[in-house]
Amino acid sequence: MNWQQLWKASEHYAAGSPSIPTAGAPSQHLAIVTCMDARIDPVAVFGLQLGQAHVMRNAGGRVSEDVIRSLAVSQGALGTRAILLMMHTRCGMLGFDPASLKAPRAGAEAMDFLPLVSLEGGLREDLAKLRESPWIHQDTAIAGCIFDVDTGRVIPFQPAN
Amino acid sequence: MNWQQLWKASEHYAAGSPSIPTAGAPSQHLAIVTCMDARIDPVAVFGLQLGQAHVMRNAGGRVSEDVIRSLAVSQGALGTRAILLMMHTRCGMLGFDPASLKAPRAGAEAMDFLPLVSLEGGLREDLAKLRESPWIHQDTAIAGCIFDVDTGRVIPFQPAN
Repeated sequence: MNWQQLWKASEHYAAGSPSIPTAGAPSQHLAIVTCMDARIDPVAVFGLQLGQAHVMRNAGGRVSEDVIRSLAVSQGALGTRAILLMMHTRCGMLGFDPASLKAPRAGAEAMDFLPLVSLEGGLREDLAKLRESPWIHQDTAIAGCIFDVDTGRVIPFQPAN
Repeated sequence: MNWQQLWKASEHYAAGSPSIPTAGAPSQHLAIVTCMDARIDPVAVFGLQLGQAHVMRNAGGRVSEDVIRSLAVSQGALGTRAILLMMHTRCGMLGFDPASLKAPRAGAEAMDFLPLVSLEGGLREDLAKLRESPWIHQDTAIAGCIFDVDTGRVIPFQPAN
């Protein structure tokens, strides 16, 4: 990796006087949970600006314990009250075989990679986790959706049950 | 939350024919780990484009187990070999008092919120975690930096030891 090139690019960003709000609390009181996938710009997808939403990202956009930790801070310390969970088509976690991934170095403990059997199943399961977690405020607006990486479209998720 | 407004905004995004690459593997073989803070656009900060880097985000930009899980997938299944850990000034996790945050509903188990005593200490600790994890490939290029939310500048991190 050419780190010098990245530092240089960041100087260009700062020199462009980006519009960074002063407040740390997201002005839309929104937290977006989504996948780490390189093809997703969750803020741009929803026409949002810097300062409007927290963004949590991990492999699959799964509601892990770390996401619950982050949402607890987001809600309890920074006042968000809406959560948008966005998974996406052609996700690497779809049908991911845990046995296919071995630790490259010795001494690794077993890990649950949280693979997805289906996007719908994953969304249903993780939306339920959000609704049931005692760390999430009862009055939180919660929604799910699927991002189509081929078209850039967002499909709101209507759980079957 | 006005979800209809968000869905509408997403239609606008798709209609603009965003340049979304076909490949899921990040073309720069880079994974950026940073905070959920609404003031950070980690891709824009480094002049990157869609498709070039994975992005993991949580409260503080801490190297949690979920970040290790995501990096294991990022490296093992999608070929990234560089990790940039970016914390930031005026982070909500700096000096965060866990006792100040109570679960809003009954039945919550205790949680380690991973507060930061200092950005330098947090970076040192979490960079060490990355270097020591058996899930991270030995040949991974690893760097840390601090994003200044007041100026938009990135300060490369030089650990004292």
